[in-house]
Amino acid sequence: MTAEARDRETRKADTLAVLATPAIDVWVATASAAGAPHLVPVSLAWVDERVVIAIDASSVTAGNLTASGVARLAVGPTRDVVMIDAVLEKAVDVGSDDVLGAAYVGRADWDPRRSAGYVFLVLRPVRVQAWREANEIPGRTLMRDGTWLV
Amino acid sequence: MTAEARDRETRKADTLAVLATPAIDVWVATASAAGAPHLVPVSLAWVDERVVIAIDASSVTAGNLTASGVARLAVGPTRDVVMIDAVLEKAVDVGSDDVLGAAYVGRADWDPRRSAGYVFLVLRPVRVQAWREANEIPGRTLMRDGTWLV
Repeated sequence: MTAEARDRETRKADTLAVLATPAIDVWVATASAAGAPHLVPVSLAWVDERVVIAIDASSVTAGNLTASGVARLAVGPTRDVVMIDAVLEKAVDVGSDDVLGAAYVGRADWDPRRSAGYVFLVLRPVRVQAWREANEIPGRTLMRDGTWLV
Repeated sequence: MTAEARDRETRKADTLAVLATPAIDVWVATASAAGAPHLVPVSLAWVDERVVIAIDASSVTAGNLTASGVARLAVGPTRDVVMIDAVLEKAVDVGSDDVLGAAYVGRADWDPRRSAGYVFLVLRPVRVQAWREANEIPGRTLMRDGTWLV
């Protein structure tokens, strides 16, 4: 049985609550310039309305993101998803930004600040969608062009 | 506390068991020719060692897949993942292949066979990896170039 569709205000509140959950993960989809898709799960920290991830600078994901500047992110299980199209706002060595490092460690369940070669990638949401089942496809867009619609 | 790393035989058995689970979903990452990443969750049916999904032929995912022929798939939660790099083996209208349609409906929890404009996309795994936590990164590759290594 499918639950009644949530209104968009509820979806936004649910979305912000899930993003603020400690020790949560995010699926990060990126693509190479040649159009090869990549996808990995990593830890997420929601800091100042940005998705922050920490990742090896030599990874496929970091390479794709610094080259293209865009990613598509998913948080939550497949039938209660938050989908985020995001742009790369900045990439910074994990040891070089104390404020960001402290914020990340305060939310994620590991500390990358001494991981050699790792970078924080700060991703700014441009479009946010949230849905559970097919009856929530209408009204799923909560942010467009970087602006919350609700 | 992190559990002891599974050996590769166990990971293959776990992988095949999760793929055969009824009503399971898969994250499908694709990319446009211009390098724009896309990601959606859809139902998965594991049929004859292929990942079968049913999707609107006009969707971004179907367009990307039929153009590029490649996808990266993820099954399971972020800390118990099966990652599959796959190639498109065939795309067929949902109403035109009775055997495939029956197999899909026998595994998924919905019936797309009368959904106008939907296609079955049959994806052949080329590389399969499975890991839970960081201690399972070594030994994560279970299939390479379409051949099981274990």
